[in-house]
Amino acid sequence: MMDSSLIDQLAEIVGQKNVLRAPEELLTYGYDATRDEGRPDCVVFPTTTEHVSAVMRLASEHTIPVCARGAASGLSGGSVPITGGISLAMTRMNHILEINTDDLFARVEPGVVVATLIDEVAKHGLLYPPDPSSMRTCTMGGAVAENAGGLRGLKYGVTKDYVIGLTAVAADGRVFHTGGVTMKNVSGYDMTKLLVGSEGTLAVITEITVKLIPAPEARRSLMAIFGDIRDAGRTVSEVIRSGLIPATLEIMDRITINAVEDAKGIGLPREADALLLFESDGDPAVVEKEAARIEEICRANGASEIRVAADDEERESIYTARRASLPSLARVKPTCILEDATVPRSKVLEMLNAVNEIAERHGLVIGTFGHAGDGNLHPTIICDERDAEEMERVERAIDEIFEAALRLGGTLSGEHGIGLAKRRYMERQFGPEGMAMMSRVKAALDPKNILNPGKIFEVTPCLTS
Amino acid sequence: MMDSSLIDQLAEIVGQKNVLRAPEELLTYGYDATRDEGRPDCVVFPTTTEHVSAVMRLASEHTIPVCARGAASGLSGGSVPITGGISLAMTRMNHILEINTDDLFARVEPGVVVATLIDEVAKHGLLYPPDPSSMRTCTMGGAVAENAGGLRGLKYGVTKDYVIGLTAVAADGRVFHTGGVTMKNVSGYDMTKLLVGSEGTLAVITEITVKLIPAPEARRSLMAIFGDIRDAGRTVSEVIRSGLIPATLEIMDRITINAVEDAKGIGLPREADALLLFESDGDPAVVEKEAARIEEICRANGASEIRVAADDEERESIYTARRASLPSLARVKPTCILEDATVPRSKVLEMLNAVNEIAERHGLVIGTFGHAGDGNLHPTIICDERDAEEMERVERAIDEIFEAALRLGGTLSGEHGIGLAKRRYMERQFGPEGMAMMSRVKAALDPKNILNPGKIFEVTPCLTS
Repeated sequence: MMDSSLIDQLAEIVGQKNVLRAPEELLTYGYDATRDEGRPDCVVFPTTTEHVSAVMRLASEHTIPVCARGAASGLSGGSVPITGGISLAMTRMNHILEINTDDLFARVEPGVVVATLIDEVAKHGLLYPPDPSSMRTCTMGGAVAENAGGLRGLKYGVTKDYVIGLTAVAADGRVFHTGGVTMKNVSGYDMTKLLVGSEGTLAVITEITVKLIPAPEARRSLMAIFGDIRDAGRTVSEVIRSGLIPATLEIMDRITINAVEDAKGIGLPREADALLLFESDGDPAVVEKEAARIEEICRANGASEIRVAADDEERESIYTARRASLPSLARVKPTCILEDATVPRSKVLEMLNAVNEIAERHGLVIGTFGHAGDGNLHPTIICDERDAEEMERVERAIDEIFEAALRLGGTLSGEHGIGLAKRRYMERQFGPEGMAMMSRVKAALDPKNILNPGKIFEVTPCLTS
Repeated sequence: MMDSSLIDQLAEIVGQKNVLRAPEELLTYGYDATRDEGRPDCVVFPTTTEHVSAVMRLASEHTIPVCARGAASGLSGGSVPITGGISLAMTRMNHILEINTDDLFARVEPGVVVATLIDEVAKHGLLYPPDPSSMRTCTMGGAVAENAGGLRGLKYGVTKDYVIGLTAVAADGRVFHTGGVTMKNVSGYDMTKLLVGSEGTLAVITEITVKLIPAPEARRSLMAIFGDIRDAGRTVSEVIRSGLIPATLEIMDRITINAVEDAKGIGLPREADALLLFESDGDPAVVEKEAARIEEICRANGASEIRVAADDEERESIYTARRASLPSLARVKPTCILEDATVPRSKVLEMLNAVNEIAERHGLVIGTFGHAGDGNLHPTIICDERDAEEMERVERAIDEIFEAALRLGGTLSGEHGIGLAKRRYMERQFGPEGMAMMSRVKAALDPKNILNPGKIFEVTPCLTS
């Protein structure tokens, strides 16, 4: 429990109006979009890098945990302050500082909402590609900290592929800069990419430079409906093997389709076993050719119907269906546990089969959707956490889902991060040696373990491990 | 000086035929493609990861420096063993372990020559894009350690953008794995990208997984000739601003053109002030459109002549000209010092002007060529190191070139690395705080400072800095 005089000192740094300390105010800062919960001793809203630096100096001096937080829409517990201390809410550092149309980059504060940046650069004919489903809520800081993906990942990559420079504050309050605004840079260690995806455990990010690309001229979306999910899986593999790189290649299974239809009523085919959503973008002629080739592959692999979006409205409705997957599944039962297992793309069908087998064996309802083109699936268990017996089966199923992903050559997380949710599986993926290397980096940059302690690592990192 | 019994122990690990110890044999292992030199106590050729692990255990126990080395074609001194110890030559670990055409990745040992990988994956209709000018010599391990760029960087990025997984050996001999074979991965810290570009100072890389992409269907190369280099600089900016992304956008100035023509006699226009080389690739229709648009922009900005490569042979001759830039300049005078300053793309013209002004003021001959589309220029000073007075002017010029790059928002190195050549400029770019963060990472992963000591850092890294 933090001494109240320390909270007074924090208020002196950022101003009274930028500190919350009443218990009823703190309550809402204990959660993200997972089931995890914590309780900060106070919430601090810095508005400058200097604020963050002064907060960290104080925290370091008194060994107070600091958990940075954006919109808290994270799906792995990254922003949940499980050890108390300071919840450092970055939402008031929310300015777009520069959109450079000559050199194609933007500089933003971490509290900028991702969709706001996407919309602003679009006005200049530019694209910031990473588009997590939560993009209308989530912040750039959170997206960088968790290395968020999105629906355009297959062609355009994830957040990490766009971050080229950072300003950050070290555990001891020192302000440092990484990378820059050039497209190529190999001056020293890539501290930029080290911080992306590090979930607030190595430094607090206070400014982000991202590269931008010219917006594609044309795009076309289509939905392919399959009576058998195995046909959909084969289609994914064949599209990739054929050398096509659509911007988007998403999958939704029968349970997800029906949950979305229940919630949104937008005319999805309830009887389908799976849907694939494709978007091609780029030069108009290429888009036409690519879409035709995709349609052909879908039909050859047993798609029963193909719907092409005739205009932006229809396209939007296809995307709404996909983005509504998680919230729609979450409505079905009181508890909804979303996983993020990622496998090599040719193993998507095997992974889908494994998930179905696990669901059946444990008598659970698991809806699966995700970025099939990346091999990044989101098996989503809908259950009721008041039912202790069911939750035991859920735990076993989660365990087996990760085992299956690793067995197929995959990884624990494609885009949601490790946070609390997956830290106990880390050693299975990386072994004690891999964990030791990460642990040494953490201990070197945050020797007092005050930056988001308890995330990524189960065991407190130390240098000699 | 290493005790000869230690060299005997190394021979026991890797076999007698995989160790060199005679002074005349060691001599050639003291150089790379810079002017730096060192002298190893022995050269060890491991053929397995286990060999490397056993070598590192021994080196760690006896605090012996280990400098990993590929083809030693590096341009920043990275593989020069300046502190003696073991030169760890990775050239006998030179197998392509897997080319996966379903999931589009390849696994290779570090000694594989870059062009060999490019040629092998091309047989499967795939492309490994990073193509440093030295690709017919340099190894994958060296390219990864220095994060090599290449002529296709503008559209396709550099080595780092393709490395998705590594097997590496830590300073203490522990073998660890980073990343994996999936396209998305946010499980823990990105140790993969931390090792890429770390110049052998954090671990020894023994296996590399790179992603591959479908080879473009068509390509077209053209050469635009300018009577005034300022017109060429403006053309570069306008191409980028117009939303075009050619695969290649290279520049050669008058001095470089004439040096290449002297060496190769391939009909380059000696009277030109600058050449721009473009390559568009992708869908045939798009290539045609893009090439036409580039031609239009070149003409509008004063290009006096445009030559389009009619076939692969003509294309090859254009590329030969560009790749011959450095070796041709190196023939002009006994000493040739190549820099790697990189600026935001809109600042290419300003940087060219700055370099010319510096050359004139110091009475030096500087030929400039490079990846104009990335803002990555290679000002190349041709001089004679036996002339002490000239070399003083050279040193001042180098200093001013870096100052100019940093002043224009650039970076010390776009693709050659820091090594020995640029370490004394690092603090100017990153400040003491940025250096302290890198230094802590180094000290945490290599506490005895045995992995390529003296590279990147001027001051021996320690944890408390």
